[in-house]
Amino acid sequence: MKLLRVGPAGAERPALLDQDGTLRDLSALVSDIDGGLLADESALDRIRAAAGAGVLPALDATGLRVGAPVGRIGKVVCIGLNYHDHAAETGAATPAEPVVFLKAPDTVVGPDDTVLVPRRSVKTDWEVELAVVIGRTARYLETDEQALAHVAGYAVSHDVSEREFQIERGGTWDKGKNCETFNPLGPWLVTADEVPDPQALSLKLWVNGELKQNGSTADQIFKVAEVVRYVSQFMTLYPGDVINTGTPAGVAMGQPEPKPYLRAGDVVELEVEGLGRQRQELKDA
Amino acid sequence: MKLLRVGPAGAERPALLDQDGTLRDLSALVSDIDGGLLADESALDRIRAAAGAGVLPALDATGLRVGAPVGRIGKVVCIGLNYHDHAAETGAATPAEPVVFLKAPDTVVGPDDTVLVPRRSVKTDWEVELAVVIGRTARYLETDEQALAHVAGYAVSHDVSEREFQIERGGTWDKGKNCETFNPLGPWLVTADEVPDPQALSLKLWVNGELKQNGSTADQIFKVAEVVRYVSQFMTLYPGDVINTGTPAGVAMGQPEPKPYLRAGDVVELEVEGLGRQRQELKDA
Repeated sequence: MKLLRVGPAGAERPALLDQDGTLRDLSALVSDIDGGLLADESALDRIRAAAGAGVLPALDATGLRVGAPVGRIGKVVCIGLNYHDHAAETGAATPAEPVVFLKAPDTVVGPDDTVLVPRRSVKTDWEVELAVVIGRTARYLETDEQALAHVAGYAVSHDVSEREFQIERGGTWDKGKNCETFNPLGPWLVTADEVPDPQALSLKLWVNGELKQNGSTADQIFKVAEVVRYVSQFMTLYPGDVINTGTPAGVAMGQPEPKPYLRAGDVVELEVEGLGRQRQELKDA
Repeated sequence: MKLLRVGPAGAERPALLDQDGTLRDLSALVSDIDGGLLADESALDRIRAAAGAGVLPALDATGLRVGAPVGRIGKVVCIGLNYHDHAAETGAATPAEPVVFLKAPDTVVGPDDTVLVPRRSVKTDWEVELAVVIGRTARYLETDEQALAHVAGYAVSHDVSEREFQIERGGTWDKGKNCETFNPLGPWLVTADEVPDPQALSLKLWVNGELKQNGSTADQIFKVAEVVRYVSQFMTLYPGDVINTGTPAGVAMGQPEPKPYLRAGDVVELEVEGLGRQRQELKDA
């Protein structure tokens, strides 16, 4: 299923995009798409059954804002340097184990919402990523099979990054990863049953129409299952938590000087195969 | 005022500790102590008035669990190496600007709850800290006065840390800062009007009755106002967000070998002057 949340920011309603591309209202069935729903197999079954029976009311998509496809996100865990080609372009060694950092859930916005260039930013950069959404509480998982059984689904994520804040201002990467609006997510949460192989998805990102990133999750150093299993050794993952699994080559930081960092007026579009497409216009904060 | 939340984990009710040390029930006045309340001056005034009028019902404190004093925390921002003596004991240079990292809100537990030593941990360490709780949305603050006006109050925070995960496993510090139960908070949120000088508070921590940390916020490299102002340049702070402002010297990592890292059965007690006391027993995860 493709689950999504539509409506004004902070007042989104749950919806489903059916196989004909029609938007269906889920608000009579569930209150939101969130960790509580994702952990509730019977509620998901009720949605599936209602969709199959064709009884869900259609929603007029005209002019409707799409929000992030998960509400009340508890945390956003990010994996850094997780593609061979991206590690190479940054000059970093291939990590021996996953590089982990965090984004605050309040950085998450809808897939087509405005992204703000922070004040005094000179190095705002893009990163298309495959996001994993957790469906069951995960502690100290032992096998890849267990790990995949804890995944509710997948989404497109834009891990917007300010490289000067991230790398040149002391401390950890978090300083350049948590600016307001820095994590567009969606449009859809595609349930795991519809993504048979998360390691065979192409990822693409364009800036002002020019293709900048063109990778595949096949190039991930640590695969989705390994990432989930690994992270669960260090922190407990809860339903509705999100893991951004890293970005392939092609970010501004990896380009020759003058590096084409983002500015107000730029338009970024990105997609992950089967998971939909995002489009953000940049504005000054 | 000393605001707190009492009752079973996940079902705490709002309360007030009055000037006589009597616990008073606030649940008829407000639904919770959270960002919504802290941003609502009139609700805080109603609590103040009811407390002054002596009309709040007493609560029997016998056997009552104390939770974290803030519910629905959006993010926990942490400042690293923020005391001259602690930076020195770790061998780190004094930072030129604040070191920032994040803890997930799901690490927050009550002040006397069990703290879990993670599986395969050999370097679980303690850190007594002054926590700042945000009361108003803060973006790009310009002055120290503005910064302090955005602070709702203060609390004791225990920034439990796994040093091997934090420092020796690649990536950012977040890997050793986000294990389950790693952020006891409370017992109280003391409103800012009752903390006239946040830079004049002693901080103490004992392990199994032995004093390990004995510092003062006077030794902070970046003062509370500067920290709030600084962080607001990189991320938006929302009501109910927490900032852990760093720890003084005396952590296990700073001791001679064999360093006395925490194990199951150890008892940690900590206090910040005027903000109350915590006590945790360590158990294996």
